[in-house]
Amino acid sequence: MPKSEIILNAFTMNAVSHVNYGLWRHDEDQAFRHDDLDYWIGLAEVLEEGGFDAVFIADALGLLDTYGGGAAESLRRGVQSPLSDPLLLVSALAGASRHLGIGVTVSTTYEQPYLLARKFTTLDQLSGGRVAWNIVTSQLESAARNLGLERQVDHDERYDRADEFLTVAYKLWQGSWEDDAVVADKGSAARPDGLYADPARVHAIDHHGRFFRVPGPHIAQPSPQRVPVLFQAGGSPRGQRFAARHAELVFVAGADAAGVRRNVETIRALAREEGRAPDAIRFVSAVAVVVAPTRAEAESRFADYRRFYDATGALVHYSASTGVDFSDADQDAPIRYLETNSNRSLLRMFDDPDGGRSWTLRQALAPEGGFGRTRTFVGDPIAVADGLEDWLEATGTDGINLIHVVSPGSFVDFSRLVVPELIRRGRRPAGRPEVPLTLRERLFGAAPRPPVDHPAARHGFPHRAATSEARPE
Amino acid sequence: MPKSEIILNAFTMNAVSHVNYGLWRHDEDQAFRHDDLDYWIGLAEVLEEGGFDAVFIADALGLLDTYGGGAAESLRRGVQSPLSDPLLLVSALAGASRHLGIGVTVSTTYEQPYLLARKFTTLDQLSGGRVAWNIVTSQLESAARNLGLERQVDHDERYDRADEFLTVAYKLWQGSWEDDAVVADKGSAARPDGLYADPARVHAIDHHGRFFRVPGPHIAQPSPQRVPVLFQAGGSPRGQRFAARHAELVFVAGADAAGVRRNVETIRALAREEGRAPDAIRFVSAVAVVVAPTRAEAESRFADYRRFYDATGALVHYSASTGVDFSDADQDAPIRYLETNSNRSLLRMFDDPDGGRSWTLRQALAPEGGFGRTRTFVGDPIAVADGLEDWLEATGTDGINLIHVVSPGSFVDFSRLVVPELIRRGRRPAGRPEVPLTLRERLFGAAPRPPVDHPAARHGFPHRAATSEARPE
Repeated sequence: MPKSEIILNAFTMNAVSHVNYGLWRHDEDQAFRHDDLDYWIGLAEVLEEGGFDAVFIADALGLLDTYGGGAAESLRRGVQSPLSDPLLLVSALAGASRHLGIGVTVSTTYEQPYLLARKFTTLDQLSGGRVAWNIVTSQLESAARNLGLERQVDHDERYDRADEFLTVAYKLWQGSWEDDAVVADKGSAARPDGLYADPARVHAIDHHGRFFRVPGPHIAQPSPQRVPVLFQAGGSPRGQRFAARHAELVFVAGADAAGVRRNVETIRALAREEGRAPDAIRFVSAVAVVVAPTRAEAESRFADYRRFYDATGALVHYSASTGVDFSDADQDAPIRYLETNSNRSLLRMFDDPDGGRSWTLRQALAPEGGFGRTRTFVGDPIAVADGLEDWLEATGTDGINLIHVVSPGSFVDFSRLVVPELIRRGRRPAGRPEVPLTLRERLFGAAPRPPVDHPAARHGFPHRAATSEARPE
Repeated sequence: MPKSEIILNAFTMNAVSHVNYGLWRHDEDQAFRHDDLDYWIGLAEVLEEGGFDAVFIADALGLLDTYGGGAAESLRRGVQSPLSDPLLLVSALAGASRHLGIGVTVSTTYEQPYLLARKFTTLDQLSGGRVAWNIVTSQLESAARNLGLERQVDHDERYDRADEFLTVAYKLWQGSWEDDAVVADKGSAARPDGLYADPARVHAIDHHGRFFRVPGPHIAQPSPQRVPVLFQAGGSPRGQRFAARHAELVFVAGADAAGVRRNVETIRALAREEGRAPDAIRFVSAVAVVVAPTRAEAESRFADYRRFYDATGALVHYSASTGVDFSDADQDAPIRYLETNSNRSLLRMFDDPDGGRSWTLRQALAPEGGFGRTRTFVGDPIAVADGLEDWLEATGTDGINLIHVVSPGSFVDFSRLVVPELIRRGRRPAGRPEVPLTLRERLFGAAPRPPVDHPAARHGFPHRAATSEARPE
């Protein structure tokens, strides 16, 4: 897509509620039916109809059990607990759509690259190249304990392992099966047995590293994108370095435009150091939108939703994300940065020595009285479109992960009211191609596989890199 | 289902070919389009229409690389190589059907029970309780090498680990969330915050074992069956003991009725020792069927299919299954039993000291000139139904895993020609319930959850066992 177009992702989780704390109790919300396939198929249809670029399904590998030292409040309030597997939704979502990209969070910490590479290859095959992987390294202590570790692996060590994990995956995806390895010749007089794959074009990868030893070859044949589009959200220094190296789409969080912009600029600068093109990475931030035909109606709906907002639920989530139990915290005192073994970026976001702005806990959790630690735009379609354009301009970002206050309602409203206004302004495409694009083609207007400046390209075959060089835009 | 009805599963793999070696080259076959979601959705529709009880998708975690000391022949011939992930197909298959059960092979050797339990809970939620797990311990050396092990874990040790794996999974599925833990109360004046799950009814499992340490609780809320229907195919002494303890449906292989019957009787006897009811386990065997309106047409089709049969492909598969490289073997010499670290049952099947029958390799691979190491029935609908009834009677089995010679053609033919004849004989149900059943209800005519004599019941709550006690039939 042209740089002028806003990337539009829907942001959710296979859970009772995602960051719309308490809203599962609102009659308009259907997301809490997360264990019902019909809900998900309906959601895919709504997003396809609305022309969303992708749905992005977050994940964690444990109940949120930091707040109050246990999972009681997260269970009571349905805050990302219980939580079902997102990866297993993908083929159903792919079956219910033709154009919609589908991104899923999977942690590298508890997977083997040989098997995870096959999973993404399979999903990319089944979706016709519409899959993205949000790479995380898992910050939850509760996940570590349930997966056989005494405690979570150290933060930077997790990223070292993730780096090598991706190298192995790149070798399997890019450097094992040549493009013409699958011959699928059913046979002839000259070759009576036929030839499915030419073994001379399927290569062992012979990886011997610090964390992994994988002789290969890749077990599955190449998918349209070979490498899923890579999402990442690292905000710590080590996480930013990782994102700068591998990510194609970076998810930046926060409600403070200047803080978000600093994060974006830091990662862009690091990406240049990694030898990547200036536009190699696209940035999206999570936002909430409450829109209605008139401002008065929008404000009335917002007030209605706010009555269901669960401030304690927000604190339960924030405690788990930061590894700090805020159950006894003074919500009106300024947040101080505290280094934990969990996600270091979140506290940094609100207590940035360079930022010059100090937040209280209450402000951080519901900026300007909004939802889910994000900016919330409330108004008629024109006001929302204005607000979004200003926000993207101020933050230097390329698009949004739209959270749902209620689902699929928030996505339906956005599709019906905001998308036409964005199309009118040339910020969303007016139509879509007859033949569906892969997600990478859709986001970057380029080839289905990673471009030459991406580290995955180093592991591809010579002719592959050559193909990618002709990268338009 | 009543004992008089024949269990009807479709047997396949997410691969170019399964046990229909060489048939991917036949124009009727579509299974080699395994990377195309439309193929799978079409298959689910065919099986739903034909009233199949379940589709059962096999898996392995490595290329077949025993024959000739490498994967060249398996790739050339498309023999289960390349191979994509089957678990990721399930939600799409569930979305394309309402009644069809969906069973998938997953190995315990490379998974963590905490995460695999969530995967099956998720799929059982999304399918409305139609999921089965075929438990394997992985015999392929190539999988072990790619997953960080020097070599495959010893055979019996794999089963010891699998036993504990299931214990952990039972605790998570059955002993963590009480039935009324999910309250989903949206709130009232008396309870203004609402209550999603009652934490007092969500229990830590506190498992500390030899292989796993899982404090719990289970991260996902219970699914309709709680425990997927458990399939198993163990044929070695240790595998038979495992099946007798855990399996609800056992897959017995072989083309020799007396040999199959001995295997069935051994497992039934072992199941009694484990305290399970005589009918606690149902047995199915793989068979191939080539049916047409007349015998002459069926024989002509069979001859046509046989022209595409790839005998070397069969040997490639058999080498991988047994861990013995048969590339230089004399196909007309009798098979001798040889203990390997791989699947011990397959060679035993054909060189059974008690069986009194000795097979050559050629006979074992294509019994009576059929397909895929199974019995093949060729004829008009009445002859096929007669043959199947005789086979079930002679083997003491309860149903079949129908392999495809071509897919979906073999399933379409069976549905159109054989199923009506089986219905006429009272061996298949004439209709189906308005409201879909869970797979366990469908197969056993009983409750959706495991019955009281199953080891999973020991880990359930007292009231659960009481509910299951009222097990009809």
